[in-house]
Amino acid sequence: MIPIDCDSLIDLPTPCVCVDETRLIRNIETVAALAGHGGVAVRPHVKTHKSIRIAREQVARGASGITASKPAEAMVFIRAGIPAITVAYPIVDPRQILALLAAASEHGVAVRLIADSAETVHAAAAANRSLGVRTELQLKVDVGLHRCGVDPLGPGAVEIARMIADAPHLAFAGILSHAGQAYAAVSADAVRRIARQERMIMVELKARLEQVGIAVPGVSVGSTPTVLLNDGFEGITEIRPGNYVLLDRTQSALGAARPEDIAMTVLTTVIASNRHNAIIDAGSKVLSSDRGAHGADRIQGFGSATRLSEPSDGLSDPPFIISHLSEEHGFIPLAGRSLAIGETLRIVPNHACPVMNLADRFLLVQASGRRLIEPVDARGVSFAPISLG
Amino acid sequence: MIPIDCDSLIDLPTPCVCVDETRLIRNIETVAALAGHGGVAVRPHVKTHKSIRIAREQVARGASGITASKPAEAMVFIRAGIPAITVAYPIVDPRQILALLAAASEHGVAVRLIADSAETVHAAAAANRSLGVRTELQLKVDVGLHRCGVDPLGPGAVEIARMIADAPHLAFAGILSHAGQAYAAVSADAVRRIARQERMIMVELKARLEQVGIAVPGVSVGSTPTVLLNDGFEGITEIRPGNYVLLDRTQSALGAARPEDIAMTVLTTVIASNRHNAIIDAGSKVLSSDRGAHGADRIQGFGSATRLSEPSDGLSDPPFIISHLSEEHGFIPLAGRSLAIGETLRIVPNHACPVMNLADRFLLVQASGRRLIEPVDARGVSFAPISLG
Repeated sequence: MIPIDCDSLIDLPTPCVCVDETRLIRNIETVAALAGHGGVAVRPHVKTHKSIRIAREQVARGASGITASKPAEAMVFIRAGIPAITVAYPIVDPRQILALLAAASEHGVAVRLIADSAETVHAAAAANRSLGVRTELQLKVDVGLHRCGVDPLGPGAVEIARMIADAPHLAFAGILSHAGQAYAAVSADAVRRIARQERMIMVELKARLEQVGIAVPGVSVGSTPTVLLNDGFEGITEIRPGNYVLLDRTQSALGAARPEDIAMTVLTTVIASNRHNAIIDAGSKVLSSDRGAHGADRIQGFGSATRLSEPSDGLSDPPFIISHLSEEHGFIPLAGRSLAIGETLRIVPNHACPVMNLADRFLLVQASGRRLIEPVDARGVSFAPISLG
Repeated sequence: MIPIDCDSLIDLPTPCVCVDETRLIRNIETVAALAGHGGVAVRPHVKTHKSIRIAREQVARGASGITASKPAEAMVFIRAGIPAITVAYPIVDPRQILALLAAASEHGVAVRLIADSAETVHAAAAANRSLGVRTELQLKVDVGLHRCGVDPLGPGAVEIARMIADAPHLAFAGILSHAGQAYAAVSADAVRRIARQERMIMVELKARLEQVGIAVPGVSVGSTPTVLLNDGFEGITEIRPGNYVLLDRTQSALGAARPEDIAMTVLTTVIASNRHNAIIDAGSKVLSSDRGAHGADRIQGFGSATRLSEPSDGLSDPPFIISHLSEEHGFIPLAGRSLAIGETLRIVPNHACPVMNLADRFLLVQASGRRLIEPVDARGVSFAPISLG
């Protein structure tokens, strides 16, 4: 949290990842209000921002805890003392669970794990047994992404739920899903249909489990598009959106974000120009090569860019489109327009999550105009050095 | 450089970026021999590995210096005392040049810059004037990628060269190119044709500059495919390949690497399985979303994977193909084959450079079986915090 003294954003060395604090807080409050109205808890996914400071803002504004995308990421927030953390990742290596639970105990953090196979239940049970603790486990359900999770219509859903419920060292905490296929949807209505399907699948599975005597205390769903374009939360107890704090071109294309909601932009400088392209100092090592999330690739180019002097929505008509990327350079076809060497542009990235993960630090721009350099605390972490280094 | 004590690679927590030291050194020696035979200097591009240790291995094996992809990356290697560094990036911000030159002077490093516009020449001249030094500048030439560089056939080539040669605080060090369009080539022969075109363009431009009285002391070219699949180095004085130390699926697809040359692999664990896919713990935040380099995307999927127990070339028939990626998960369609939850796989990535940039550390596997955890020293750096933080 180093204050940076610069007369204007135009004076900043680039490339620079900027987060507009006013928009960030408004986005956090929007989802908090949505959840309050729907009677559900919010446990936001921190994989988007990887920032302890932003996680604390979320908890201060009503989040019941946070969700992490992998064990090593969770570890950063456990050590920061965020009080409740769901590790939304099926962990098969008992050493990783042992390390997580030991750290959680040390820092007074309530950790919740997920499982979707006998292997992941056994790993969690073994780690809990050896530590003499009893951790909450949620059953991960595949609602259409076909990534992790049990088939909600197959026999495995009941079998794995019962395995968790019967394990003396585990507490069955209900069911959890992520409808990431929403990122491939072609309209806001299509996203809403996916949100409705997810909710119906989860509500029906809860009923089926309770019919066979397995109490289901929680029903947790969530992705940013299916939360922002939700179909109501009846039968749901918790939502876990992540990207909503920052937003990006992907959310805008899905109809889940207005240009004025997007809190992350990347400042870049035009460093060269030829008769084909203007070249900027932001490439795939800044913007990532993502076209969308979960492999979706409907978006044109790798980001939209506007002059810093223009309105900062980056989606006003017509922005410059970054057509392709080298590692440290972006290409902007000029098509008759011009950009001067040395000019500063503001980019709206396709996908905010990998952009934050590629940065060591981001610039938090406060409403007062004050700018702070903030660390991306959980970027790039992996378990190997944490547990064995 | 932390030694890691593990009975076998199968015991390592994953995902884990591994570099085979035997192959790495052999790749360094292959290019050193190629250069020795061709009578050219090697100034390898460190953007691939971002490792001070590997840069030192390159210098110890005959490299005349190194090449860096941006000012902040160069700064890491200046501070490590690598004796000669080309910053192959047109820098328009004089503050960045000032910071680089001041650090170079402090650490006794000879820095060479590039320019391709009046703006970049003026920025370099201003910084040199204010420090009272005289830095070598090379003219960057566009040989077909249409990224940075002057048009070799246009009037700008002579104008900018003369501007450098005439500036009292700059030393004109010749011409420099990068035929990155080779990554879109469809065969080894097509790569060779691009290498030949690059060489012809550069040799002709040198003659044109000398005809108007501008001495051209150096002609620097290079990319890994156009160096490994070269057309001879007549008229060339220096090559700057980067990826050749690690290699990847892209180089293999171009015909520039044999499977047994590839020195970087990523260890991953199967964490879930359903009737559609096996799911691994390496996603786009480990493998990147790159299909190739410079936006080339001819490669199928996002990496090939083999069981750790199988030969480690990752390209033997038939490997598993990673069909798409979420941020922390990879999808492997099983198509009738099976992978067990908990199984360790070895991935050959599409593009080694962004994979290294996404890792904080890599595992260097030595011929003896000893394993060292090495930092990726220059990953994620940007100039803002370095100069102003």
